[in-house]
Amino acid sequence: MNQSSRRKFLQKASLASLAVASPEVLAPDKNKELFIHHVLFYLKDKNNAQDAAKLLEGLHKLAKVKTIQYVHIGTPASTSRPVIVKDYSFSWMCFFKNIIEQELYQSDPIHLKFVEDYSHLWEKVVIYDSVGPKKVS
Amino acid sequence: MNQSSRRKFLQKASLASLAVASPEVLAPDKNKELFIHHVLFYLKDKNNAQDAAKLLEGLHKLAKVKTIQYVHIGTPASTSRPVIVKDYSFSWMCFFKNIIEQELYQSDPIHLKFVEDYSHLWEKVVIYDSVGPKKVS
Repeated sequence: MNQSSRRKFLQKASLASLAVASPEVLAPDKNKELFIHHVLFYLKDKNNAQDAAKLLEGLHKLAKVKTIQYVHIGTPASTSRPVIVKDYSFSWMCFFKNIIEQELYQSDPIHLKFVEDYSHLWEKVVIYDSVGPKKVS
Repeated sequence: MNQSSRRKFLQKASLASLAVASPEVLAPDKNKELFIHHVLFYLKDKNNAQDAAKLLEGLHKLAKVKTIQYVHIGTPASTSRPVIVKDYSFSWMCFFKNIIEQELYQSDPIHLKFVEDYSHLWEKVVIYDSVGPKKVS
């Protein structure tokens, strides 16, 4: 099975497995929505520049996952108000076409290898997954 | 002063006021970076559909601010793992060209009016401001 066939197969398999559980699949116009996956990484040793560089290296590898439509790797901006959370090390924000593509990302070998190789560096992650129209009209 | 001149004037004024404080302005290649402003809104009465509709109406008005490059309004996705935060009502995520454009957004009359008209609806906001390259290479 080539890469493209494998992806289509996995998409169908995911669609089947999600059909019961996910309202996104049942509602066709939900496909016009965008799935945003925002992860905040907290390093165990937040002042260790080597660990930060290592995790950044891992995130660059992770960015190669094919189902990611857009990805942004950030660090806390210089803005500061009490409501702004600034204690994380890296912000990782991905756009996915829909929830199925996001599930494929979670199970992608690149993602699994990333967790295997780099998860010892972080003490926690905080994740916000949100869905909404691609364009605000 | 027309809209365009006013914007240019404000940009220059902001540039001047930020020149001392902000490392982004001092480092020219930081302009290749993207500023992501992610706000999670928590309604006071989270099960009140009318309040949710009202805030959504406000967010659509807020989306008209000119310095916003891209905006996504979302609600929690159906994904659920312990690390996923799902207790907010709305996710508001904007892209800005740089920190200056984001400062202009903060002081834009549309933004000030939004806070005036709708802030009674939420009990808190949690904000993540992060900067990083537009494209992951």
